[in-house]
Amino acid sequence: MAVLTAAVRMFNARGYHATSLDDVAASLGVSKPTIYHYLGNKEQVLVECLTMGMDQLLDAADKARAGLGKGIDRLRAFLLSYAEVNMEEFGRCNILTANETLSPDARETIRLLKRRIHATLEDLVAEGVADGSIASCDARFAALTLASALNGPSRWHRPDGPQTPREIATILVDFLTAGLAPR
Amino acid sequence: MAVLTAAVRMFNARGYHATSLDDVAASLGVSKPTIYHYLGNKEQVLVECLTMGMDQLLDAADKARAGLGKGIDRLRAFLLSYAEVNMEEFGRCNILTANETLSPDARETIRLLKRRIHATLEDLVAEGVADGSIASCDARFAALTLASALNGPSRWHRPDGPQTPREIATILVDFLTAGLAPR
Repeated sequence: MAVLTAAVRMFNARGYHATSLDDVAASLGVSKPTIYHYLGNKEQVLVECLTMGMDQLLDAADKARAGLGKGIDRLRAFLLSYAEVNMEEFGRCNILTANETLSPDARETIRLLKRRIHATLEDLVAEGVADGSIASCDARFAALTLASALNGPSRWHRPDGPQTPREIATILVDFLTAGLAPR
Repeated sequence: MAVLTAAVRMFNARGYHATSLDDVAASLGVSKPTIYHYLGNKEQVLVECLTMGMDQLLDAADKARAGLGKGIDRLRAFLLSYAEVNMEEFGRCNILTANETLSPDARETIRLLKRRIHATLEDLVAEGVADGSIASCDARFAALTLASALNGPSRWHRPDGPQTPREIATILVDFLTAGLAPR
C-alpha cells in the first residue's frame, strides 16, 4: 500500500512515462526487486493504482445507491464523492492517465471498470427522472456531462489552494445539478 | 496544412508516442525530410497542431465577444463553438495531449494560449453577471466547470454516431447554462 501511494504520487506529479520503478523504490528505501515481487512491473503498478481509484468510486456509488431520499438526493451524494475522489491521488491518476499509456489488456480491464461507474451514474439520473426529482433528459448525456465536469478538478485543483476538495465539490455539484432541476 | 491534418489524425487515433513522422510522411506519400523541412521535428508538428486548435477557439472567442445581446447570449455562442471545436481533430488533440508529453518550452507556449482562452470564458461569465443575465457566481469556477464539461466529448464523441457535433454541443450547452440562469 505504501508502494502504491508512493507510485501514484510520482505518476501524478511527473507523469507515468517519466517515472521509473527505481525512483519509486528509492523514495521508499526499498529495492526494485521488492516492488516487482509484490506488485509486478510498472504497468501492473499503474493498473493497481487505477483500480484503487475505481474502487473508491464504486464504493461511493454503492453508498449513494443505498441512501434515502429521491433520485436527485442519491445522485447528489454520488456526485459529491465522485468529485472528491477525483481530487485524491488514486482518482486523479485515473483522469491523468491517457488510454494510450496502457497495453490493450490493461486498457480493457480499466474500460470495464469505467463502464460500471458510468452505468451507475446513468442509473441514478434515470431513477431521478422516474421519480420526478430530475427533469426529463437523456440520462446518458447527462451522465457524460456530469462526469466530464467533475473530472476537471483533477487537472486544476491545488491541494494548497484556498478551498478544500469538499468545498470545490459542493460548488461544482450545486452548479451542475441546477441543470437537472425539474422545470 | 495537409501534413498537419494527417499528423493530427494519427496523433488522435494512435496517440502521440505511438506515431512517428515516418508514418505521417508515408500516409501522404512524401519523405520525412520534407516534413522536417517545412515543420520541424515531431514535437514541433504537435505544437503546430495544438496551436491550430487554440486558434480556432480564440477565433470563436473573438466572434462571440463581438456578438449582440446580453452576456449570457455571447457566452452561449462561445460555448457552442468551444464544444464543436473540441469534437474536431485539432481541438481534440489539445484535450487528448497530456501536459507531460510536451517539453518545458512547448508546455509554456501552450499554457499561455490556454490561459487566454480561459480568461475569455471567465470574462464572458463576468459580463453576464454584471448585466444580470447570469446569476451571481464565482466566474473562475463557472468557467472551469463549463470548460471541463465541454472538453468531455473529445473523449466520447463518435464521428459516426447518431448526433452531429452541433447537436451534441447544443444539448450540453443547454444543460450547463441552466446552472447559470438568474434565480
